Amino acid sequence: MDGVPAGLEISEDEVQRMLDLRRSSREPHSTARMESDRVEIQSGIYRGRTTGAPLLLAIPNEDVDSSPYEGPPVPRPGHADYTAWIKYGGYNDPRGGGRFSGRLTAAMAAAGAVALKLLRVVLGADVIAYTREIGGIRARDGLTLEEIAGRYADPLRCPDADASRRMLEAVEEARRAGDSLGGIVEAVALGLPPGLGEPLVDTLDGDLAKAMFAIPAVKGVEFGAGFRVAGMRGSEDNDQYRVEGGRITTLTNNSGGILGGISDGMPITFRVAFKPVSSIHRAQRSVRLDIMEEVELTVKGRHDVCVVPRAVPVVEAVAGIVLVDHALRAGAIPAVLR
Amino acid sequence: MDGVPAGLEISEDEVQRMLDLRRSSREPHSTARMESDRVEIQSGIYRGRTTGAPLLLAIPNEDVDSSPYEGPPVPRPGHADYTAWIKYGGYNDPRGGGRFSGRLTAAMAAAGAVALKLLRVVLGADVIAYTREIGGIRARDGLTLEEIAGRYADPLRCPDADASRRMLEAVEEARRAGDSLGGIVEAVALGLPPGLGEPLVDTLDGDLAKAMFAIPAVKGVEFGAGFRVAGMRGSEDNDQYRVEGGRITTLTNNSGGILGGISDGMPITFRVAFKPVSSIHRAQRSVRLDIMEEVELTVKGRHDVCVVPRAVPVVEAVAGIVLVDHALRAGAIPAVLR
Amino acid sequence: MDGVPAGLEISEDEVQRMLDLRRSSREPHSTARMESDRVEIQSGIYRGRTTGAPLLLAIPNEDVDSSPYEGPPVPRPGHADYTAWIKYGGYNDPRGGGRFSGRLTAAMAAAGAVALKLLRVVLGADVIAYTREIGGIRARDGLTLEEIAGRYADPLRCPDADASRRMLEAVEEARRAGDSLGGIVEAVALGLPPGLGEPLVDTLDGDLAKAMFAIPAVKGVEFGAGFRVAGMRGSEDNDQYRVEGGRITTLTNNSGGILGGISDGMPITFRVAFKPVSSIHRAQRSVRLDIMEEVELTVKGRHDVCVVPRAVPVVEAVAGIVLVDHALRAGAIPAVLR
Amino acid sequence: MDGVPAGLEISEDEVQRMLDLRRSSREPHSTARMESDRVEIQSGIYRGRTTGAPLLLAIPNEDVDSSPYEGPPVPRPGHADYTAWIKYGGYNDPRGGGRFSGRLTAAMAAAGAVALKLLRVVLGADVIAYTREIGGIRARDGLTLEEIAGRYADPLRCPDADASRRMLEAVEEARRAGDSLGGIVEAVALGLPPGLGEPLVDTLDGDLAKAMFAIPAVKGVEFGAGFRVAGMRGSEDNDQYRVEGGRITTLTNNSGGILGGISDGMPITFRVAFKPVSSIHRAQRSVRLDIMEEVELTVKGRHDVCVVPRAVPVVEAVAGIVLVDHALRAGAIPAVLR
Repeated sequence: MDGVPAGLEISEDEVQRMLDLRRSSREPHSTARMESDRVEIQSGIYRGRTTGAPLLLAIPNEDVDSSPYEGPPVPRPGHADYTAWIKYGGYNDPRGGGRFSGRLTAAMAAAGAVALKLLRVVLGADVIAYTREIGGIRARDGLTLEEIAGRYADPLRCPDADASRRMLEAVEEARRAGDSLGGIVEAVALGLPPGLGEPLVDTLDGDLAKAMFAIPAVKGVEFGAGFRVAGMRGSEDNDQYRVEGGRITTLTNNSGGILGGISDGMPITFRVAFKPVSSIHRAQRSVRLDIMEEVELTVKGRHDVCVVPRAVPVVEAVAGIVLVDHALRAGAIPAVLR
Repeated sequence: MDGVPAGLEISEDEVQRMLDLRRSSREPHSTARMESDRVEIQSGIYRGRTTGAPLLLAIPNEDVDSSPYEGPPVPRPGHADYTAWIKYGGYNDPRGGGRFSGRLTAAMAAAGAVALKLLRVVLGADVIAYTREIGGIRARDGLTLEEIAGRYADPLRCPDADASRRMLEAVEEARRAGDSLGGIVEAVALGLPPGLGEPLVDTLDGDLAKAMFAIPAVKGVEFGAGFRVAGMRGSEDNDQYRVEGGRITTLTNNSGGILGGISDGMPITFRVAFKPVSSIHRAQRSVRLDIMEEVELTVKGRHDVCVVPRAVPVVEAVAGIVLVDHALRAGAIPAVLR
Repeated sequence: MDGVPAGLEISEDEVQRMLDLRRSSREPHSTARMESDRVEIQSGIYRGRTTGAPLLLAIPNEDVDSSPYEGPPVPRPGHADYTAWIKYGGYNDPRGGGRFSGRLTAAMAAAGAVALKLLRVVLGADVIAYTREIGGIRARDGLTLEEIAGRYADPLRCPDADASRRMLEAVEEARRAGDSLGGIVEAVALGLPPGLGEPLVDTLDGDLAKAMFAIPAVKGVEFGAGFRVAGMRGSEDNDQYRVEGGRITTLTNNSGGILGGISDGMPITFRVAFKPVSSIHRAQRSVRLDIMEEVELTVKGRHDVCVVPRAVPVVEAVAGIVLVDHALRAGAIPAVLR
Repeated sequence: MDGVPAGLEISEDEVQRMLDLRRSSREPHSTARMESDRVEIQSGIYRGRTTGAPLLLAIPNEDVDSSPYEGPPVPRPGHADYTAWIKYGGYNDPRGGGRFSGRLTAAMAAAGAVALKLLRVVLGADVIAYTREIGGIRARDGLTLEEIAGRYADPLRCPDADASRRMLEAVEEARRAGDSLGGIVEAVALGLPPGLGEPLVDTLDGDLAKAMFAIPAVKGVEFGAGFRVAGMRGSEDNDQYRVEGGRITTLTNNSGGILGGISDGMPITFRVAFKPVSSIHRAQRSVRLDIMEEVELTVKGRHDVCVVPRAVPVVEAVAGIVLVDHALRAGAIPAVLR
């Protein structure tokens, strides 16, 4: 991580907590491999504070049995095996999906822990994500911030207990069927000042969306009313202004806190769609790339049924990184904390 | 436009055609101001071909009556007036929304005309967008490429004539009510090679999404099955591989032609949600920013009811720019055409 | 120019003054073509102040007789004709050297006028360059800041009147011989705060040097003691610290005000070497690129004998742009002036 | 290192050899600390070849006695202690100069080893640097490529044995005096195609110069005839063209192989000035930054007298990185080696 302001107090333990939120739990939705995921901060800290130099956050891989990835190149449907093979001429490291592995989100979580700490300490801001939907089961509308804040008490990170229970059943059912489920993570960023984001090229929504697509399995991103705007009228969608406690706020927040690519001081709200886990226990058609011959492939090993619960802290982390980047650009976070 | 390969034959007329597609028509959905929008290529062309130097595509503004933008600063709900005022300390040019004006999409269309020509000439590729939804009325599923290709024959750029007719009624009805409508543009990019896009940071979907959010009024972007993945199973969502005519293709295209941020050679499909036009003929609440006093605002002038038909070529243009950028990076388009 | 802070008062006249300094004078060292070089600010200004939007500073070309550039491609020695032809596959615009023309420095001067105004208004800083050497004749050491400040009173922008007189004779002599001369521009940037520049990748000296090499004909850049350090000892070269008027200063300034890529608050001093003008009135060997046949070439037209006097404001301008860029990054210049 | 083409065969041993060239030797000019500097390639290699993913080249620090860097902040003259302290508000890691340490050149050497291998394998190109001057003693002109190629046989990396002997005496003398010496590294890049480099913004000379200024202690960079152009005439400086073996070459190479920021296919030649080592065994004036009080400082420990011999491979490495970067941009090195 380059560009972290100097003077931030941060410990390995704080970063580790974010990694732990992302890690496999014993819940039925998550992977059976127990990854220890211990982070080490190898540079950029002196006497417990950031120095202004780059942080190297290392999360060593345990020794992994790579034998499942040996043998002829047969891309797993839904994974990036084929595109990686094409792009890197077959030289890419296939083990665990290489740099396309979902494991890369551990690095996002670690970097995000630093970013989120900055947001909290300097701006009193925060990013809170939660499971909005899994397998077609959607948490109810109108969840309060307090309810959402308790997301990590739920095994699926869904603050609607009833929906969570039904999601869990769906996950269990999909697991038994050797199948997997998709879902939606919803997020809200609170406490950010107006004025973050640049017009046209580096918009705040554009940068948030781009960063979300860096998370494996993301297929859609929407802000505020999102795709619902297609059925709305201007008189319903427009967020009208008022003065509240000396600050300008809006009566509604259909824009999701961003207008013209720039934050307006209201909560920034967005939703991210995650596709079902690509590794399923069913025979699928594929192709031996070296001889261009069709084959049947059955993916081995144990895998998550649905990434959404583990994606919740990753979405928070990645959003935190983008928001800090824009806060630095806009001068809302200084280069040196005092 | 910097980075355009040398040797491309391109004329002002070709660029102008793209501008004309974006321009106001006499159709009831579009603005009453007649913008002439004549493009001039002021640099980068020699003997009818690009030279490798930057193209300056100028679209002079006609003299505009700026009197509606004088007076105290009162942000129009839904527009970027407030965020621009905050970001630039009140120094921003308010006339027509300044650089936040929808008029900036004329520049996108012009640059996109060059990009799309490159895609066609060098790769035989193309981007085709069309109106998928307006005011909650959705074109039917299963439109063929041939039907979609005829989009510009329809006043609303919707290849489903029945839907188009109902959309037009909705537009007319909203106009009479002094209101506006949102909608969805769907796009497909055809003929692109696999291997475009970079992992993690500059993914193809991330860059396309980011670029779409540069278009005013965009609130969501999704690829392939998009938000529908939230209700899908892996066995349904995974695109299985086969060999077809010596090439690897997929049985379905739920990924929208992108896996791990990299194109897989299948059509790239995505949808973009546009909010209703913010300028409506209804009284709305706002605030005088200079004295922080609440006021009632009625936006004057005539405006589009729905931007979606005019956004169709803009989505094509912006996608074309991103795709050319990635094709250059991947070496699929050379720096000099021969 | 993107990234110019909002709220800066700037007029076309102020920009024009910088262009005028760069323009051909009636002095014997400069080109016989009378370029009018009128700048127009086409965007980014509202009510006399910058808006935060990009400035488009246009300097229209007069209609030029391009006939000398027609005919088979024969690169002029010393010019970029050959490398441009190679890079752009022969599609480059050869007229006047195209984008490799020294005329591009007019744009640098215009942009620099805005940057230098920012430095003056916000930081009370400035960049002062002058002719240090022409044709082997060097202005004396130990010129005071007051003497240097009067540089533009001298036709060669050399504050040492005696040296200037001898330089002029050398220029005249070279002109008569159909030949040209090189020289050195020396510059000092005053009043900048310590802390500008980033370590390793975007150092202040690295960025200044890189920007200087964008000026045609530059072959070397050195800071502080420069190449003289090769013969110095550490005890002589090290700039020792003291406290002076509550500020930390150095006893000497061999570092040229930059240590570790970061400004230390002392004057930033550097020198830039310019090669002799490549267009000379002598037969030279070249090659017809289309048939790879050796030919003799005599460059027609009238040209400067030495670019150094005209390069003086260009060096100031380019340095100003780099310094403003770093001052913005470091937060020393705000994004909105108040 | 991101962006390394896939398919390059590279081993830790090859990288280590470059590090060894940079390392302290037992020669009198170099530091008494014995750094082991073992490189580990922690990612980006699979089956002995690059995968297209980033390489992490780690060079662990031995446990260092950091006690000399404790105590009140007193910047060492010539080092970046003061500017680092200012920039990072005193939070910077002072041990060994932190990220401003000359030790960072170990990372440059490691990355450069990969870059230089690419140049050799793909283009048959190479970068050869050598000691041109130390303490005012200069290697003779007219050294042949063969002589220069044997640079590493000489303890000071100077191919002129007589000059090397006298340099060694100067180094010894300076060491006895507790002082240090500066010098010049000269480099030549051979075998590169014409067309590398972009006009104006990312020129090849500009990028090489900027990268050189990232090496600690560099105060000047010049190409081809360099600062000597100030005393040259155009008729002498211009490199005239001819056809030689079907290729276009120049009779002289005063441009140093770069015209208009773009390589012309001739050897790229440049010189880099290094200041004397800042750590000397003499009392110097400095300031306690915490209380702004002048103090006398004597730097402890053993240090190099002159960095030039160790800088020779670093200049090669850094140039290699820049040249590979431009070769990739220009398509001269492909993204996948086959």
